[in-house]
Amino acid sequence: MKNQITSALSDFFFEYETPRQVLVRNRRVGVVCRLIQLGVLVYIIGWVFIYEKGYQSTDTAVSSVFTKMKGVGYTNNSGGERVWDVADYVFPSQGDSSFVVMTNYIMTEGQSMGTCPELPGKHNCNTDADCEGGSFKREMTGVCVNRTKTCEVLAWCPVEDDRDVPDPPLLLSAENYTLFIKNSVTFPAFSVSRSNLVEDVDSNYISSCLYHPLSAPLCPIFKLGDIIKLSGLNFQTVAKVGGAIGIVVDWTCNFDVHVKHCKPEYTFHGLYGSKEGSSVGYNFRFARHYMEDKIQKRTLLKVFGIRFDIIVQSLARKFDIIPTLTAIGSGVGIFGVATVVCDLVLLYLLPKREFYKNMKFKYTDTQVQDPDSEAGSTETDVSKK
Amino acid sequence: MKNQITSALSDFFFEYETPRQVLVRNRRVGVVCRLIQLGVLVYIIGWVFIYEKGYQSTDTAVSSVFTKMKGVGYTNNSGGERVWDVADYVFPSQGDSSFVVMTNYIMTEGQSMGTCPELPGKHNCNTDADCEGGSFKREMTGVCVNRTKTCEVLAWCPVEDDRDVPDPPLLLSAENYTLFIKNSVTFPAFSVSRSNLVEDVDSNYISSCLYHPLSAPLCPIFKLGDIIKLSGLNFQTVAKVGGAIGIVVDWTCNFDVHVKHCKPEYTFHGLYGSKEGSSVGYNFRFARHYMEDKIQKRTLLKVFGIRFDIIVQSLARKFDIIPTLTAIGSGVGIFGVATVVCDLVLLYLLPKREFYKNMKFKYTDTQVQDPDSEAGSTETDVSKK
Amino acid sequence: MKNQITSALSDFFFEYETPRQVLVRNRRVGVVCRLIQLGVLVYIIGWVFIYEKGYQSTDTAVSSVFTKMKGVGYTNNSGGERVWDVADYVFPSQGDSSFVVMTNYIMTEGQSMGTCPELPGKHNCNTDADCEGGSFKREMTGVCVNRTKTCEVLAWCPVEDDRDVPDPPLLLSAENYTLFIKNSVTFPAFSVSRSNLVEDVDSNYISSCLYHPLSAPLCPIFKLGDIIKLSGLNFQTVAKVGGAIGIVVDWTCNFDVHVKHCKPEYTFHGLYGSKEGSSVGYNFRFARHYMEDKIQKRTLLKVFGIRFDIIVQSLARKFDIIPTLTAIGSGVGIFGVATVVCDLVLLYLLPKREFYKNMKFKYTDTQVQDPDSEAGSTETDVSKK
Repeated sequence: MKNQITSALSDFFFEYETPRQVLVRNRRVGVVCRLIQLGVLVYIIGWVFIYEKGYQSTDTAVSSVFTKMKGVGYTNNSGGERVWDVADYVFPSQGDSSFVVMTNYIMTEGQSMGTCPELPGKHNCNTDADCEGGSFKREMTGVCVNRTKTCEVLAWCPVEDDRDVPDPPLLLSAENYTLFIKNSVTFPAFSVSRSNLVEDVDSNYISSCLYHPLSAPLCPIFKLGDIIKLSGLNFQTVAKVGGAIGIVVDWTCNFDVHVKHCKPEYTFHGLYGSKEGSSVGYNFRFARHYMEDKIQKRTLLKVFGIRFDIIVQSLARKFDIIPTLTAIGSGVGIFGVATVVCDLVLLYLLPKREFYKNMKFKYTDTQVQDPDSEAGSTETDVSKK
Repeated sequence: MKNQITSALSDFFFEYETPRQVLVRNRRVGVVCRLIQLGVLVYIIGWVFIYEKGYQSTDTAVSSVFTKMKGVGYTNNSGGERVWDVADYVFPSQGDSSFVVMTNYIMTEGQSMGTCPELPGKHNCNTDADCEGGSFKREMTGVCVNRTKTCEVLAWCPVEDDRDVPDPPLLLSAENYTLFIKNSVTFPAFSVSRSNLVEDVDSNYISSCLYHPLSAPLCPIFKLGDIIKLSGLNFQTVAKVGGAIGIVVDWTCNFDVHVKHCKPEYTFHGLYGSKEGSSVGYNFRFARHYMEDKIQKRTLLKVFGIRFDIIVQSLARKFDIIPTLTAIGSGVGIFGVATVVCDLVLLYLLPKREFYKNMKFKYTDTQVQDPDSEAGSTETDVSKK
Repeated sequence: MKNQITSALSDFFFEYETPRQVLVRNRRVGVVCRLIQLGVLVYIIGWVFIYEKGYQSTDTAVSSVFTKMKGVGYTNNSGGERVWDVADYVFPSQGDSSFVVMTNYIMTEGQSMGTCPELPGKHNCNTDADCEGGSFKREMTGVCVNRTKTCEVLAWCPVEDDRDVPDPPLLLSAENYTLFIKNSVTFPAFSVSRSNLVEDVDSNYISSCLYHPLSAPLCPIFKLGDIIKLSGLNFQTVAKVGGAIGIVVDWTCNFDVHVKHCKPEYTFHGLYGSKEGSSVGYNFRFARHYMEDKIQKRTLLKVFGIRFDIIVQSLARKFDIIPTLTAIGSGVGIFGVATVVCDLVLLYLLPKREFYKNMKFKYTDTQVQDPDSEAGSTETDVSKK
């Protein structure tokens, strides 16, 4: 028994199976099949390996973004001269990856809780009866104010008058503000961390550079006007009614070359759809509360601004044995498909198909049950058909 | 030499190799093997291609979200009548994808820096000795206040009394607030951008619609009460102690059909685990600072609210030649496995296995070293064994 | 006709094709080929299946994070004794996944809009002519102030003096603050939701635990000092000038075992690159507005703080039939490559290569055009060459 196993094992190890093949010497079939096989080979090597880099595994990054605005705005409207610094015009102030730069505003100062008539045009009325009920949008007192012919509401009074948006925008100087972006990405699968302050971008360079798509594509300092222009929008329009801009930081890296070649690319585009003007129009309300003569008051700001979303997009690639062998393995599989196609041509389309069939196949006719003629004769039988 | 290479090349190009095969005419083996092959074929075509869409490559999106609340709340408690508008009850105000809507609060007005006794129940004491030391949670002065039998602390005084949470919640009207979501997604691999304001959702529709899972599944305006109900929570409970709700915007798109069929789906669920009540209970403290009689004071708000996280989930698919051919190639490989299984049946399980072995294999007995009988005779030798 | 199809079909179903093979009994070739095949097998089973878990499909999670700080700071500088609670030192206050804990500050109280000279060192001048023009950073009035020898600016006055950063940092007590993290993840492909408050982490445990990498790796409450230490930074340095710390919550889960084994792992590291000190230095300006004697004033805070980014990283795996069969299929393909390599050895390198060639190949010499001798004779022809 043990002997048998040993012998079977040694048989197994010292033997080698290789398929027997017919070498068809036919120009037409030969050329067609070699071309098909060449096509598969070119596809596997050219497309899968070289173009799509199928020998690499991929990973996306986890990232962290910090932003800092610089610049001072100046307004000179009814409230007198006024400057606006970073603490005034950036929301929120702590440098998030998504923030708003105020470019225009409607300020309603000295609001306090009380009753006052609505703006003309909203909740018009002739008698108190028109002002009954209410809605989830306004708390009505049920009184029709004769002077304005509008209903009286319980609200922060006086109510905000946002019918006219200042034009030109009050903070057009925002065009000259600069934005500094600090972005770090980590590719966990490859244990690589990168910052957008890459090797060439040292503190000297940062102190003097300004982003330009061609001449300074790695400078992390951006002029707001440039960003708007590069995203294809008009600054004055966006500044007046607000807008939303996506700043995409694209990390497409190949870690088979030195990590220093892994550099960010910045692109800019309007957010919220491709429809005309859909990136335009962004505002929110913001209140500053204070006490005056023991009465709680607030300054309401309807802020029109540019909302910036720093969107980090990443795709790193590195040689990996698994996708390489999977690509090779499945390429060999496709080679098999090529063989099947050629066989179909050979066995069903060529005039001499019967001849090739006999060459390729050996038939076992188990109905005949002729043990003596097993190997040789069936072959001969067929060739005589 | 050159001649030789040319001839070898022309040989190579005009030749075609195809494996020689045995055609086993055995009903049992035939049926078993055809069934196995059929199974593999059904799996590859039905499962990999049709069900799992293995002929498509996939991509996830980068996205940007903007939100806007509408509605007015009304309270009439100790501090008199008061309305709460968006600038008062949304944190932060600038329309982030993650924000809090205040539904209940404990307001401590007029706090100023000073010393005052702790609330009864916290830091109880009988003598000053009980109040020595301190902790990182409170700055103690070391004095035991007789009146309240609690330690004196250096803090914003008077200290907040948050032992009783207002019930019913002060801003139950939050149920009627509406939330507007603007979401844009970009699939970088396919260069497709979409907005949740899809083709049918124009400004007319938005001005009048309200989201309903069946009758208005694309309307981007949501009633807060509906959201809470759809996420399986009770509004009154959540409004009282706060809660966290995830609004998932699901973009599952197939770009082999027209891009207009790529539409968002909205689902709602409580966040932070599946345990009973784990989505319930959310609060934070928020201060408004002001000056009164040259003294810095603040109004402290313990805000109970509903925190909304807009979570964008995306998966787009499009026909791609690489996964298609990889699937085909590895399918052919599995065909090979099927052949191996059938061969095992044929060569080791069937009664006539020796017969089939002789049909399939040709042995080279290199020990024999009989050059004359190479091709034909070894075959015959074997069949005589 | 119908008969013919039926017969062809029955032929097809009752037949089975298996390739004819040569069994080469040669020790060297046998051993080499078996070793190559063994290598491929070990690679497929050991590497693809066991090590890389190629039988599983993967998914990443959508996640939601809520944070809560606890602790009180105490300062006793020029402005007198003062405590700082959560509402004072956390920005923003509502518990975002990215927030700043103030550890040091430069406070400029009582700023109002007006004109005042710049700080010595900035915009030095001798005559008014030096102060002409202006820049987007400052709004100049064109006056040179004699007393300070600096230009006069229109700004919030007095201007902030940030030349000296308080050292030691004013809020060193921040080291003892605690951070509570609530994180929920959902793996959409597997329909599994998890919270970082896993099975063993109940409310009892949370009320008393403190995170420690070895003894309490699942406790979601972290001491700030511990976080800084674990990320390899020095607390005093970071507290003085600010810094950025990433808290990575890693969900690497295998859903082939019970879901309760899917637990988060917390790691900590400095953000913004690997350069020495690049994680250090974080500040922003923040203003509190108030009215005093009908004049709008503000308190400007230059906040130095630690910015925490909670970064959720996730990768779940589960058995899936598709990747399993793809791996097997492409493994079989690689087996085919092994056979090709062995054949090359057999047919081109061995001394008896001609013998093996004749065993393996059957030639069809279509030029001969001898229909009688098709099957048998060509074979013999070749062996006689």
